[in-house]
Amino acid sequence: MSYKLTYFDFKGRGEAIRLLLATAGVKFADDRVKLENWPSIKPHTPWEMVPVLHVGDRSLSQSLTICRYIARKFKLMGANEWEASKCDEYAETINDLYLEWIKFNFEADPDKKAELKNAFLTTLVPKYLIKLNTLQSNNGGNFLVGNTLTWADIFVADKLQTFEDTVDQGVLNEYPHLRKMKDAVFAEPRIKAYIEGR
Amino acid sequence: MSYKLTYFDFKGRGEAIRLLLATAGVKFADDRVKLENWPSIKPHTPWEMVPVLHVGDRSLSQSLTICRYIARKFKLMGANEWEASKCDEYAETINDLYLEWIKFNFEADPDKKAELKNAFLTTLVPKYLIKLNTLQSNNGGNFLVGNTLTWADIFVADKLQTFEDTVDQGVLNEYPHLRKMKDAVFAEPRIKAYIEGR
Repeated sequence: MSYKLTYFDFKGRGEAIRLLLATAGVKFADDRVKLENWPSIKPHTPWEMVPVLHVGDRSLSQSLTICRYIARKFKLMGANEWEASKCDEYAETINDLYLEWIKFNFEADPDKKAELKNAFLTTLVPKYLIKLNTLQSNNGGNFLVGNTLTWADIFVADKLQTFEDTVDQGVLNEYPHLRKMKDAVFAEPRIKAYIEGR
Repeated sequence: MSYKLTYFDFKGRGEAIRLLLATAGVKFADDRVKLENWPSIKPHTPWEMVPVLHVGDRSLSQSLTICRYIARKFKLMGANEWEASKCDEYAETINDLYLEWIKFNFEADPDKKAELKNAFLTTLVPKYLIKLNTLQSNNGGNFLVGNTLTWADIFVADKLQTFEDTVDQGVLNEYPHLRKMKDAVFAEPRIKAYIEGR
C-alpha cells in the first residue's frame, strides 16, 4: 500500500501525522504544498483543505481522523476499547487548546494578538494542562494512556512542542509530567531518526 | 453496565449522544443540568465541561469521543476500518461547520450576528454541504458510509436538524440527498420512539 501525505511545508496540522507515520515505520511520500501553489491545488482536495492522506487510490481528510486511522492500522491506540476512547478524549481536548492557539497566532492586529496571547498563557493553558499533567502523573510511567506509546502521546506532544516553540519556551515549567511524556515521545528511536533526517 | 449522560437541558452537543444511545437500545440516565446549577457542578467535571458520559464508575468526555465510544461498542461505525475512518472524517467535518454555527449563534451584537449568519448561509453551508450531499448521493441508498446506519449519519443528521431549526428551515433545499439521509435517521424506529417519548 502506498501512502502520500499532502500538507503545507510546515508543521501545523501535518506534523503529528508525519510523526505517527514515522513511528509506524511507514514509508510515505511527504508532499509539501508551497503556499503560492495552494490556490490551484485547493479545489482538487476533498474538502478544500489539507492535510489529506492518500492511501493507494483512496484519500482521507481531517487531521484527527488521519491520525486515528494510522493508529488503528498500526496498533497505536492502546490495549482495549476503553484506552482507544481515552486516546480520543485527550487528543480532542488538546485540539481544543490548539484551536485557541490558532486564534491568537493568526490574529493580525498586534494589540489584539498580545491580549489573546496573554489569555492563552494565563487562563487557557492552565485550564487544560493542569488536568492533563495530573492525568499523566496518575497513569505512571511515560505515557498518557495505558503502558505503551499511543497516538494520543504523539498528538499531544506535537502540540506542546508547538506551544513551546511559538508562545513561550517555559510553557511546560509547571507541568513536569507532560514534559516527561513529551521528552519520551521525542526520544522514541523512529521519531528521533525522522526528526534528525528532516 | 450503567450509563449516565450529564449535559445541559437542551440539545447542543448532547443530543447526538442521546440519539446514539437510543439507537443502540441502551437504557441511560439522562442527567440534565440546569444552567443555574452549572457553576457548582463545573469544577467536578473532568475538564470543566459537559457532555460527560459515565460508564459504571468511569467517565468519558468530549462529544465526538463519546459518540465514537458508543458507536464502537454497539457496532455503528461501519463494516471495516476504512468505513470507521470515513465516519470519523464526516463527523469531524460537520463539526467544523457546527463550530462556525456556534460563532454566530452565540454572538451578542445583533449587527455582527446578522453578518455572521449571512456568511454562514451563503458561504459556509455550501462549502460543506455541496460536497457532503454529493458523497451521500454517490454512496447510494440512505446513508453516508457503506450500506448501514452509522454514527456519522446520526451525528450529521443531528447537526443538520439544528441548522434547520435555528438558522433557516430551507437550509437543506439545495441538498436533497442530505435531507433524505436525515429523514432516514429520524425514521429509525428507536430514534422515532426516543423523540416521541422525549
